[in-house]
This record gives sequence, structure tokens and C-alpha cells, in this order.
Amino acid sequence: MNPRDAARAARKASRHTQSLDTQARVGALNRIADALLVHSSVILQANQQDVELANKEVAKGGLSTSMAARLVLTHAKLETLAQGIRSLAAMDEPIGRVLKRTELADGLILRQETAPLGVVLIVFESRPDVLPQLIGLALRSGNGLLLKGGSEALHSNRALHQVITQAISPLPAELFALVETRQDVAALLDLDDVIDLVVPRGSNQLVRSIQENTRIPVLGHADGICHVYVDQSADPTLAQSIVLDAKTDYPAACNAMETLLIHRDYPQSQELVAALQAAGVQLYGDVDSQARFRLSPAEDGFAVEYGELAATVCLVDDVDAAIEHIHRYGSGHTDCIVSTDSEVSQSFLSLVDSACVFHNASTRFADGFRFGLGAEVGISTSRIHARGPVGVDGLMTTRWKLVGRGHTVAPFSRGEQRFTHRPL
Amino acid sequence: MNPRDAARAARKASRHTQSLDTQARVGALNRIADALLVHSSVILQANQQDVELANKEVAKGGLSTSMAARLVLTHAKLETLAQGIRSLAAMDEPIGRVLKRTELADGLILRQETAPLGVVLIVFESRPDVLPQLIGLALRSGNGLLLKGGSEALHSNRALHQVITQAISPLPAELFALVETRQDVAALLDLDDVIDLVVPRGSNQLVRSIQENTRIPVLGHADGICHVYVDQSADPTLAQSIVLDAKTDYPAACNAMETLLIHRDYPQSQELVAALQAAGVQLYGDVDSQARFRLSPAEDGFAVEYGELAATVCLVDDVDAAIEHIHRYGSGHTDCIVSTDSEVSQSFLSLVDSACVFHNASTRFADGFRFGLGAEVGISTSRIHARGPVGVDGLMTTRWKLVGRGHTVAPFSRGEQRFTHRPL
Repeated sequence: MNPRDAARAARKASRHTQSLDTQARVGALNRIADALLVHSSVILQANQQDVELANKEVAKGGLSTSMAARLVLTHAKLETLAQGIRSLAAMDEPIGRVLKRTELADGLILRQETAPLGVVLIVFESRPDVLPQLIGLALRSGNGLLLKGGSEALHSNRALHQVITQAISPLPAELFALVETRQDVAALLDLDDVIDLVVPRGSNQLVRSIQENTRIPVLGHADGICHVYVDQSADPTLAQSIVLDAKTDYPAACNAMETLLIHRDYPQSQELVAALQAAGVQLYGDVDSQARFRLSPAEDGFAVEYGELAATVCLVDDVDAAIEHIHRYGSGHTDCIVSTDSEVSQSFLSLVDSACVFHNASTRFADGFRFGLGAEVGISTSRIHARGPVGVDGLMTTRWKLVGRGHTVAPFSRGEQRFTHRPL
Repeated sequence: MNPRDAARAARKASRHTQSLDTQARVGALNRIADALLVHSSVILQANQQDVELANKEVAKGGLSTSMAARLVLTHAKLETLAQGIRSLAAMDEPIGRVLKRTELADGLILRQETAPLGVVLIVFESRPDVLPQLIGLALRSGNGLLLKGGSEALHSNRALHQVITQAISPLPAELFALVETRQDVAALLDLDDVIDLVVPRGSNQLVRSIQENTRIPVLGHADGICHVYVDQSADPTLAQSIVLDAKTDYPAACNAMETLLIHRDYPQSQELVAALQAAGVQLYGDVDSQARFRLSPAEDGFAVEYGELAATVCLVDDVDAAIEHIHRYGSGHTDCIVSTDSEVSQSFLSLVDSACVFHNASTRFADGFRFGLGAEVGISTSRIHARGPVGVDGLMTTRWKLVGRGHTVAPFSRGEQRFTHRPL
């Protein structure tokens, strides 16, 4: 099927699926969860093929060990996936929730209701466990998907896709189309009339290249330059444990700390820097912190996403200077203050213009699962549509429904009838 | 100031404005309302210049009489504008509304709050009364604006802008920048890193040209191909008054009916068509209705926005065929069913995938003021961010705020601490 036909078929299937009652979608979700376990051997065999090919690539130096490791599916992982899909099935119906009801005039009632977006293109790299999660989110919210996985996971994705589209029957298999070539993705990125949203999940490079090549709205983030600001008033034990967690728990994550801002008069600054160094973190400093902590200069500037055990350190005069730094060099992802001064903390929380702003908690909490959203579509640093960690809500739009008794606008224009605009 | 500097200054001014307490923004709104009346003679004099130039253009055939008429400001219009701005001042604070509160774990509290988008570029044509309305919406929601008005309204827009930016002091004048040249607009459309949203208000051509020339999200609609479907069960009096209102109340509006779908067995179809013709509406038909009503063929197809006293008429077999037609030829703006059959009406309301779906009410109600949203930013047919008539809500995004007591993720990963995910 050509890309445009696949997108149209997915929209038709989405319109059909959202018109069914809740039980039809919930039943299909539970059948997916069952099928992942019933057909686990088929899935794991296909995955084994990908893993063997990947290991050969690793041996040739064409793929990193960590990339190959992320490919591996196990029976335990399938069980976790099945459990995740069952919890999506158990959540409240997201379609048709009434957000607003207004009596516009006598007998004229307006409702604003939630509705599925329609068709979403998701481009993801490597990890095949992403596929069932995304399908679960889409089915729960009545959306059609076009899915392009990484070529390293080709066999795994095919097997998962086949098991899942069989399991959802009698729902139409066209709801979730697998896209396999880069040319198809390029063609899909042109279809801003039939695709509502693109979600790139992968490297910054992938996100940027998609943002630059489509007029379809893109949900995601190219950069994750997260800051921790340690205030003069910070509790030293707390500061150290947050900073270490934010940087070292998973340095490749987009919500890991990249820049540490320290109040010039924070008494334990030496100990904090030493603790990071002791944890193996390579630190680069601004002019002042080069001098104070004997660091190498931050030669690439202050807007660097290291994605490894490295960070920039800057000394700042006060919370305002910290906020100024964050607005200038940050990416609007997640920024944190460590402070015991409630006025200073409040000012940081209200002024920092990022998707996630934290007080005395590690930046690593910026995550759909940790935020309690269930599975995660992605993390958005855009201000439009959805911001920060995005779950099912990010796949929804709204629809206005107006029910009257033959109301026309002319008598209102003539002043014979009046709007009441009464919230119901 | 060059476009990038103007956008940056607007963002800085927006960050400052949103950090102030409610009373600072409310006070500035009330001062704008006062200033529009106190300085009405300056504004009306400037408007007179535009009107005289426009009348010369009309005489030369370079401008339509209706375009020139829409330019005219009067003291009464300024009073209405001032009143509109005072009602924006009286509405509930839209910034910092808590949408969600969750306890993630003991002592770790997450809030999702509303926040201003940041910087919005608005390109509007002709009517200068749009400028104070948009500034009112932006100020209420803490956003910065870059405003490009039509060249016909140059003097009016300059006068309004000057009066308003003086009135908002001590708020920074950079909050609302006036952009005057097309080159500046072209430059601004490239700034997807510093502008969050573009709102084109004007002709379909303007909207389409902006959509095709920017990667900034665009809020609006290029087409308004609205349908009224008259079901077999429709009350004939009601059907006739809705259809006439939808087509003739203001034929140039985007929410006017462009296509009339009639159930093949609707008994009063001849009378309905005759009533439209009697009201001066030129009708074009599909093959069946050409024969039944002696209409000229719809030579340009069924996806036509006439914008004048003209419409397409098609006969359909049932509500499913009507929905199919709407999905195929509509623009997802506003579609209406006239029916007394509640099952059929329900099916239409739940299946038609448009921003506004109406039952027994004229399509002309699709409007921010009529929907009770106060002033209107625009009407969006996109499924992303905001859909249908958009008021202050469409200028808002959200921000996540997390407050802990030194929480780190590592103990959760190790299973030593557990998420509670308790809604508060």
C-alpha cells in the first residue's frame, strides 16, 4: 500500500474504532496482552534473529554494545508489556469526556468533548518494546498509527505487529500500519493533509531531521539540556544526592543534568564538585569555576548535551542569574532548584519557563511513567498541544457539539433573542 | 528593531508580565479600555486617513466597497471594544490554574498548571478593531504579540498600537510589537525557535500562504466548507429556517453553509430548494439533484467554498452517505444535521469528525463570542492544540511543577521506594 493510502486507511479505521463502545477497545487491548504471552515464542524467535545480526554488527564495530543490548526482548519483558497494556485497558475512557458544558441560550446546549487526534506517525529507533506500548496508547485513545521502527529491530517489529493486528480483530488491521523504508517515511512526512502528528522517538539527530522535513506538527524534543541550580541556602546532603542522581543515574537520558549552576556563596561547593568527580563525572567550567575548582574550560559553550558522565559547572550570583542562564542556554525540558529558602524556590518555580520545573527533586523524575501517566508517547519541549511527558492525553483533541431546537443566529443579531452563556 | 530582536524582546516582556500578580494585568487591561475612549479622537482621525485612501482605491477599482466599509472605526465601535476588554479583565485568571495534582510518592507532589504560550505572531487583514481585541486576549493570558495588520489600516493600527502600549505602562511596550512590512513577516515566519504560534486572520489565500511558508505551528483554517444535512425525518419549518440562516445570514463567513445535503426521501425537498432560490441563492447540483430540482451542474466539484449567495446541493441515501460525503469533501470546520430522529442525530454527532458538529442549530453559531469564549483568537480546523473557535485557552500551554524533599529516582529503581500515584 502506498503511504497516502495507508494513512487514509488508518484514518478510516480510527473513525470506525472510535465509534465503537468502550468495551470494543478494552477487549482488543486485553486480547493484545494475552497474545503477547501466547505467541511469545514466535516473537522471541524473531527477536533472536535481530539480536544475532546486531551482534555481528557489534563485532564489526558498526553498532555499539549498548544499542545491541537494548534490542533484546525476554519473556519477562513481554510480561511487563502485557501488564502495561492491561493497565491501559483499565484506565478511564479517554474518548468523549465532557470538558465543558454551556447553555448558550434557552434550549441551545454546547458541549466540548475529547476526541482522538486521528492518525499519528511514530518513528522510533532500536527498542522493539516501544511498538506494543505505542499501539496500546493509540488503541486506548482511538487513534490510527503509522509505525516506522529501526532497521535493527525489523524482525521483532514485524512479529509484534503481526501478533497484535491479529489479536485486535474484528477491529481493522489497517489501524496500525508498519512502514519499513526510509523512502516511505519521507513520503509520509509530506502528508500534512492526512497525518495529524509525528512523534520521533530516538536520537536528537532523528528528531531534528524530522522537524526540518515536515509541516506536520512534531511532538518531541531535540535537546535535553537540564539544569540543577544549587542555591546558597541548599541543604548540602540533599544537594549532593539530587545532583548525583540527576547526572549519574542514567547519563544518556534526556532528563539527565547537563549543567550544574552553583550559587557563588554556597558553602559546600567544593564538596559537591568533588563528589561528582569521585563518581567519575568529567566537569567543564565557566571562567570562575575553572579557577575555583580547577576545571577545564567549557570550550563548546554552555548549551551542551553531553549524554554521558560529563557536565558543565557555572557559578552564579543568585537565583535571578540562574534563571537568566537557564533561559539563555537551556532547552526548556526540565530544570531544578535545590534550596531551603521558600521565597527563592517560589520565584524559581514561577519564573523558569520550562516544561518541567522541580524543587528539591531529581530531574530524572521527568518521565511519563514516574509522573503517573501510564505509558509515554514522548516528552515534548514545544509549547503547543502537549508539554513535558505526554501520555494518552497528548493523543487527544476536542470536538464541539451543539444541540438546539432549530436555533438560528439572525434573531440574536436583531436583539430579539439573547445569549445566556450559562456554565452547566 | 530587527524581527528576531523584536520576538526576543516580546518573550522577555511576556516572562516579566506573567510573573506579576493578576492585578497588574487586570489594571493594564482596564487602562487600555479607558485609553481607547480618552484618545478616541486621535484614533478616529488616523482611521479617517485610512478610510479616505481606501475610498480613492475603491474609485480606482483597486478595493471592494465591502473591504473599505470594514475599515471604518466609530466612537460606538471603540466603546464596544472597550467593553470587550473590560469583560476580559473581569474573567477568571487563566495563568497558573492547577489542572492536575498527583502525589507521586510520599512527600513528592506534582502539579500541572496553565502557563502562557510565550510569543504569538498574528497576521490580520483590514479590520483594525481586531488589534485591540487580540492585545486584550494576549495581555489576559500573559503572552507577547507580534502584530502585522493590513496596509489599508496602517494609520489606524499605528494609532491604536501607540495608545495601547502607552496605556499598559509600567508593563513593557515590547510586549506588543507592530510589524509593518511583508519582508518582516517573511523573516518572522522563519523564527520557529522564538515564536510559538502563528495566527493568520484573513482570506483563505493568506492562511494557505502562511501554512506553506513556516514551520511554526499555525492556528486557523484555510477552508470553511460547512454542510447542512437535512434528514428524512427533519421538521420542514425548522430545516428551512436553519438552512436559510446558515447560507444567507452572512455568506462570506467561514461558518456559512456551502453544501446542502438532502435525504433522497425528505418530503419537502422541493420547497427547501425553492426557498433558497427565493432568497437569491444560486444552487449547483449533483447529477440527481440537477434532475430533480433543475439545477446547473456543480462543475467545480463538491469541495467548493463559495463565500457568497451560492451553494451545492446533493441528494444522499441516508445519514451514513451524508457523513461519508462530509468526510470526503468537507474541511472539518462545522457540519450540521437537521433531524427529529434521535438515533440518526446521535450517529451524526458521534461520527462526524469535524471541529464543530451541530444538531438542529445553524452553522453560524460556530464562533468564539457565540460559544461564550469572550473574544476570539480564530477558528482552528487543525486537530492539534486547539480546535474550533479559540479564545484565551488557545493561547495557553501547561507547565509541570514537582516539589520534593530531596527525592531521587535511584531508590525507586532499586525497589526501595514505591510510587503512590495518588490523585489529589
